[in-house]
Amino acid sequence: MGLLSKDIKTLDDLFVHTLQDIYYAEQQITKALPKMISKVSTPELKQGLEQHLGQTRNHIKRLEQVFRMHGHDPKGVTCPAIDGIIDEAQELAGDVEDPQVLDAALTAAAQAVEHYEITRYGTLVAWAKQLGREDCASVLHQILEQEKATDQKLNRIAESKINVKAA
Amino acid sequence: MGLLSKDIKTLDDLFVHTLQDIYYAEQQITKALPKMISKVSTPELKQGLEQHLGQTRNHIKRLEQVFRMHGHDPKGVTCPAIDGIIDEAQELAGDVEDPQVLDAALTAAAQAVEHYEITRYGTLVAWAKQLGREDCASVLHQILEQEKATDQKLNRIAESKINVKAA
Repeated sequence: MGLLSKDIKTLDDLFVHTLQDIYYAEQQITKALPKMISKVSTPELKQGLEQHLGQTRNHIKRLEQVFRMHGHDPKGVTCPAIDGIIDEAQELAGDVEDPQVLDAALTAAAQAVEHYEITRYGTLVAWAKQLGREDCASVLHQILEQEKATDQKLNRIAESKINVKAA
Repeated sequence: MGLLSKDIKTLDDLFVHTLQDIYYAEQQITKALPKMISKVSTPELKQGLEQHLGQTRNHIKRLEQVFRMHGHDPKGVTCPAIDGIIDEAQELAGDVEDPQVLDAALTAAAQAVEHYEITRYGTLVAWAKQLGREDCASVLHQILEQEKATDQKLNRIAESKINVKAA
């Protein structure tokens, strides 16, 4: 179990708590993505989500590196936000029958996941710098840039391959 | 009750369902923001969140306009994603005692809300265009630009006023 929110006294505690939050979130994403990928029809989207799955596994390793650099064992703490985002994606994916409309829904769900990651990593980079942990900030910034690139890629796939067919 | 996900057959249905999702989300945000504002110490953050509350109320009116332009009555549908994001913010806000660290946590929570809105409005703009509803896309795009500007403003406040004091 990670740092409970009632134990947060300093910005350093808040930084560690939020690291634990995104560590849990990345693990939930690696569990959810294979189910989403199995429902996708458009090859470009399938490939984009498979690449995202590979990146997510790599981000878990990098987060473990940041935990250790900062003198903590890697631990997760339940993150109701990512649970809600994934629940919503799975509810929708379970119900839409038309494969093109389903692909549009899955792309939107994957982008909601990306934006959650973008906001959390953006915050973590800022706090790491404030705490004088340029080493942690540098690793977190690399992850942030990958998340942004994935979101942009999903945008391009949605515009060129998905929405046109679904309409 | 809005359009259930099991009733989504077309991109038009998906568009209406997602409008209902963000309509519910904006309503939950107007309920959550006053509680967050009451806990804030930094004047610039308080003012930024009060401005966000005013914008959110205006976005609800604009969404009602989009529903009507598209031939639907405004309705919400439960959105587990925003419920999770708000639950997480309130859990954290209830527990952090130090006012500067609490402000840092509340800024991060407000940015998570913004990013959820940014991803949903981005998707809605793309789908409205695909459906040939440039009129709806134009209103949704205006909301999207305001959400992005609020996120940028929160970034500036965090960097210049919040994180420095919390560290």
